[in-house]
Amino acid sequence: MERAKNFNAGPAALPLKALERAQAELLDLAGTGMSVMEHSHRGKAYEAVHNEAISLVRELLGVPEQYEVLLLQGGASQQFAVVPMNLLPAGKSADYVLTGSWSQKAYKEGKMVGTVRVAGTTEKDGKFARIPAASELSLDANAAYAHITSNNTIFGTQWHDFPATGSVPLVADMSSDIMWRPIDVTKFGLIYAGAQKNLGPSGLVLVIVRKDLVEGGRKDIPTIFQYRTHAENNSLYNTPPTFSVYVLRNVLDDIKKQGGLAAMEKKNREKANLIYSAIDARPDFYSSPVEKGSRSTMNVVFTLKTPELETEFLAEAKKQRMEGLKGHRSVGGMRASIYNAVPVEDVKALADLMLKFKA
Amino acid sequence: MERAKNFNAGPAALPLKALERAQAELLDLAGTGMSVMEHSHRGKAYEAVHNEAISLVRELLGVPEQYEVLLLQGGASQQFAVVPMNLLPAGKSADYVLTGSWSQKAYKEGKMVGTVRVAGTTEKDGKFARIPAASELSLDANAAYAHITSNNTIFGTQWHDFPATGSVPLVADMSSDIMWRPIDVTKFGLIYAGAQKNLGPSGLVLVIVRKDLVEGGRKDIPTIFQYRTHAENNSLYNTPPTFSVYVLRNVLDDIKKQGGLAAMEKKNREKANLIYSAIDARPDFYSSPVEKGSRSTMNVVFTLKTPELETEFLAEAKKQRMEGLKGHRSVGGMRASIYNAVPVEDVKALADLMLKFKA
Repeated sequence: MERAKNFNAGPAALPLKALERAQAELLDLAGTGMSVMEHSHRGKAYEAVHNEAISLVRELLGVPEQYEVLLLQGGASQQFAVVPMNLLPAGKSADYVLTGSWSQKAYKEGKMVGTVRVAGTTEKDGKFARIPAASELSLDANAAYAHITSNNTIFGTQWHDFPATGSVPLVADMSSDIMWRPIDVTKFGLIYAGAQKNLGPSGLVLVIVRKDLVEGGRKDIPTIFQYRTHAENNSLYNTPPTFSVYVLRNVLDDIKKQGGLAAMEKKNREKANLIYSAIDARPDFYSSPVEKGSRSTMNVVFTLKTPELETEFLAEAKKQRMEGLKGHRSVGGMRASIYNAVPVEDVKALADLMLKFKA
Repeated sequence: MERAKNFNAGPAALPLKALERAQAELLDLAGTGMSVMEHSHRGKAYEAVHNEAISLVRELLGVPEQYEVLLLQGGASQQFAVVPMNLLPAGKSADYVLTGSWSQKAYKEGKMVGTVRVAGTTEKDGKFARIPAASELSLDANAAYAHITSNNTIFGTQWHDFPATGSVPLVADMSSDIMWRPIDVTKFGLIYAGAQKNLGPSGLVLVIVRKDLVEGGRKDIPTIFQYRTHAENNSLYNTPPTFSVYVLRNVLDDIKKQGGLAAMEKKNREKANLIYSAIDARPDFYSSPVEKGSRSTMNVVFTLKTPELETEFLAEAKKQRMEGLKGHRSVGGMRASIYNAVPVEDVKALADLMLKFKA
């Protein structure tokens, strides 16, 4: 079976080794005669997988003891509501920096829960071509938290330096670039990330949150939405999405075996460089709507001169089994999503096509 | 590989054919060169799976046009909060009938959201040995809804006739017995069911809800928790748990091929009969804490005379690769969960052991 070259924006490519392991064990986890999906979440076999996944998150990201690592359901879209439900009490306000569609959605959902304000935006005619400079932000020193989206899948921009928010907890939606490189977790109050780009299958969201924020969180919301409920129960208060956690474990184990996040960063920079170099090499042919300093290493957005050329390009890519290159319906153009699991060879093939196409 | 005889309470046994299909296609869904987990939820290949799963729910349960079929995340435990968030406005009250731990949890979570009252309970010294008779219920004719748990996994009881609630919408948590037999969906305002017993892997919850309830639902709650959001977007507002939906599709397809819910009912009654007959055949040896008219066809709870005998019984069962027979930690004893996917032969083997053990 020939694997497609998968440039999907998410759900996206997963490491072949993680999938092969899942396939081999699908009917029989560790000699138990049952699929991981058939195991009780309170049994030893699943518990070992669950705890290994959490340990690997801690190890790979260097998560300090004063943070909880939670494995929850509902994706990042649910966290748009759950973050303010927990951390935004009446009488307080939360800051949102807008850099694209996802941060707009987070802001809008925050508004359904409490008082939110825009602490900065790079929106221009409905588009976002860059990440704001620190000097452009007007942060509220009394905010309950300040929220950013670390990588913007649709517009292809990424925060390369995180804003300093002082004593205000920085909350980051890292759905589309978590673990692309090492980070200093202590800069954040809370990090959340839907699994379906760099971590595993959809249906799982990772939340890393400082213990004092969990403890100080609101108690007047339903039990299931309180971070403390899941923190106190090692994310086993209710039945977790066991298969998704299992695949997460396989993915993280594969990342570790490849050399951890330092190795990921090296590979990801190499891949991003291949495509951006192809764009820059043919400025008459390709253009990028993104300011150079804000270019994303995960989602490379570019356009060709005419819609007809773009259609031709996509057809040629399809012939070479490249999938998912069409830009988001809201912005058009092309988008190559090159998350952790996308092989360097696949990106080389795409860069090669870009350099040779009608050259 | 020898399959275990899986009597887990949930996550639980899945149909072997559904798992084998998942294994065969794990790296390559329908010749696409990608795992179903790697497909975009907005692409044709996944969309076909998604829509087939929803169609099969409609077909197997006979869901009428005036109901929405939603595939959501967060399990039944999240629905404990989401149901009242949507359907219980200020100034109204909702009725809960308590028949076990899960209905107690639903009631408790309802209390976090709005005004709820107990419309009936069979609790006695912390235990629930039966389902209440219609005459024991004190239903509020003005309630926003009346909530029941159709099957109680921990205490092994099940509603065999559903209460008549007149114009008050009947809401049922059917997590542990959905699709065990045909039902008349029009008797319900809303049915919800975590997938991990009769439907598929954990991480997915099925919601069947009357359209007028969706339309009349509260609008002052976060977008992600409004049923209308998911109804308007065919459960694709945010990324669904694609692999779980895929396995659900495989399971439902297998049920259909076996003859649908009528065939399920026949098989499930046969299985339940095997175990209850073994209990009743040796009243000096086994006893059931459940009143006969309330016996569950899904979870058969029984005890032996002493804890030592129970330990011996479990050891003997283990030798025959029977798993998951220990009762819930809150009640002790034994529990055989014999959901749709548990083969008749496995149940025969258990009944056989029960009849022969120390005989």
